[in-house]
Amino acid sequence: MTISEQTTVNKSKNRLSSRVNPLELSSHGAVLLDQTKLPNEVTYVTITDAREMAEAITTMIVRGAPAIGVAGAFGVVLSARHFINQGLSLDAFKESIKNDALILRESRPTAVNLMWAIDQMIESLKNGDEQKNILDTLTQLALKIQADDIESCKSIGDHGAAIVPEGAGILTHCNAGALATAGYGTALGVVRSAFANDPTISVYADETRPRLQGAKLTTWELKEDGIPVTLITDGMSGHLMKQGKVHVVVTGADRIAANGDSANKIGTYNLALVAKAHNVPFYIAAPLSTFDMSLEHGDLIPIEERDAEEIHTVGNEQLCAEGINFYNPGFDVTPAEIITGIITEKGIAKPPYKESIQQLFNHT
Amino acid sequence: MTISEQTTVNKSKNRLSSRVNPLELSSHGAVLLDQTKLPNEVTYVTITDAREMAEAITTMIVRGAPAIGVAGAFGVVLSARHFINQGLSLDAFKESIKNDALILRESRPTAVNLMWAIDQMIESLKNGDEQKNILDTLTQLALKIQADDIESCKSIGDHGAAIVPEGAGILTHCNAGALATAGYGTALGVVRSAFANDPTISVYADETRPRLQGAKLTTWELKEDGIPVTLITDGMSGHLMKQGKVHVVVTGADRIAANGDSANKIGTYNLALVAKAHNVPFYIAAPLSTFDMSLEHGDLIPIEERDAEEIHTVGNEQLCAEGINFYNPGFDVTPAEIITGIITEKGIAKPPYKESIQQLFNHT
Repeated sequence: MTISEQTTVNKSKNRLSSRVNPLELSSHGAVLLDQTKLPNEVTYVTITDAREMAEAITTMIVRGAPAIGVAGAFGVVLSARHFINQGLSLDAFKESIKNDALILRESRPTAVNLMWAIDQMIESLKNGDEQKNILDTLTQLALKIQADDIESCKSIGDHGAAIVPEGAGILTHCNAGALATAGYGTALGVVRSAFANDPTISVYADETRPRLQGAKLTTWELKEDGIPVTLITDGMSGHLMKQGKVHVVVTGADRIAANGDSANKIGTYNLALVAKAHNVPFYIAAPLSTFDMSLEHGDLIPIEERDAEEIHTVGNEQLCAEGINFYNPGFDVTPAEIITGIITEKGIAKPPYKESIQQLFNHT
Repeated sequence: MTISEQTTVNKSKNRLSSRVNPLELSSHGAVLLDQTKLPNEVTYVTITDAREMAEAITTMIVRGAPAIGVAGAFGVVLSARHFINQGLSLDAFKESIKNDALILRESRPTAVNLMWAIDQMIESLKNGDEQKNILDTLTQLALKIQADDIESCKSIGDHGAAIVPEGAGILTHCNAGALATAGYGTALGVVRSAFANDPTISVYADETRPRLQGAKLTTWELKEDGIPVTLITDGMSGHLMKQGKVHVVVTGADRIAANGDSANKIGTYNLALVAKAHNVPFYIAAPLSTFDMSLEHGDLIPIEERDAEEIHTVGNEQLCAEGINFYNPGFDVTPAEIITGIITEKGIAKPPYKESIQQLFNHT
């Protein structure tokens, strides 16, 4: 089944379009909604070359596994725009773009969607025999990656809506929303599709220290679309579940191993353990581009370690004495055994994951 | 066994005196280390009447269950100092102090040490037959509550040091340190005594959102005393435990029911569940004044709900859009079933708690 057929099948279902558009390719460059400024300022930055894009990915102006895949692809287009008509030989043109692509590929280490998108862009360079054609091919591929991501998210939403009980409290961690994708969202795609069917559902958002994407992005994006959301700190989930207020947990993922072990924003693993202790179903929502079938299990997923600043400060506020030791892994890995299901654009994988995930790929 | 005998028994053991002194009764008033200003400023405020003290407790200038017990007792002394020699009848004098005491008693709802201390102060009012004597009695009792708390903490440290493995990584939540008590600390009392025996141990401190007592207070206090500490966010504990870096968790408590269910800072319950999933022992350290034997189980413990501001902001930084729904319980309850032991000044209670806790009280 192709994605376009899949989409036709699901078009009859309810979907809540998002007003949020995190990134776009224009004739001037790639326009990014600056996610480091939300929710206080809604500003856009125009990125004009690949290295700027790598920087924007590293500094999290754009973030979220699927979104940085698209951003990386846009970065490669910007590179081709830069090197075209500079009198380079075809080989030098391709080599220059490839160099930029490899820099983009390294700009964040954990989310595999970035590598997946860049590898496709590099692959498509190979057969080009003329600079103009190469730029056109790269542009079309980048726009296809973007469009496919939106469609994937909508299909994820359609499949995922089925697992949300009527009137449910849905707890999510970090931001796996329109902002984290080309639009619509993965975990929040499930929320949007569920809400379109049942406006009595509501969301609890973990604030998600240290970067506070839950507080800053998830609450903003859900408020934009009129979906009720309650902000909590990361340590409150157990207390909330004990009171029966959470009926399902849905988060995104940055990389999923072949056995279903899923890397996602730090704190997701704690949340999954807490959900397990309360028999609250815990779902991951992610497109197939998030799977790394070359990795047998989650211990092999590289975990980005980030700066002290994120732990020591919030904005201009110093939280602890200067020079305190810190530990700041950006992600953790939730083992497949405590994941109820993985919601993809091709359906929901359930244990045993090795088989069910392979099946999803066989059907693409 | 009386406390003084207990102390003699333990005097031979190693103890690391803390340089941190959170509150003191002076002739000018009660001098409080302003914990809302740490770690950026080390400033002291002098409180001169009971209502100011109630305000200082509510606004967390002084915080920590045992510390607010002592602060409440000091508040009653300040009340007696205020009403003495104002020409009041003996009954009116007592009644005025009692009114202030009841305001102090209500200044925070969860920690039972406050009620325990205030009730003793009110009880001691009864037999006084002269204003000067009453003030003297109240003063002596308040200073005894303070001195006993320090001794209790040191005994907690002595008992607790035995459960800390050599070279252990000890994870703690919030601040159950010298700052949270009259000195030395409960959970950090265990750390201090363990460190005095074995300087290869080290501490991981949960930052403890929303009030960040771990980041602001625990790291500061341990740094003051030269004990190695690494700051993490509340969502990192599982990732850390999976790597085998945490050998034991020790936290304080604000109120412990007769069956061992323990209320402590929000996030403690999540941490206990995460520890359980990794077979990491989870201990509560608290003096007997933290037990509320009138409550059969933890569901009966009143949980303070606090303002939006703590969730929506850090200092002057706004974290989310204005007006976002929030939920801000100050505490959660960890069920006795997942607590490995409760370390008190009389020894360590182990399951079955109903019996072991009663035994600790029988021996006082």
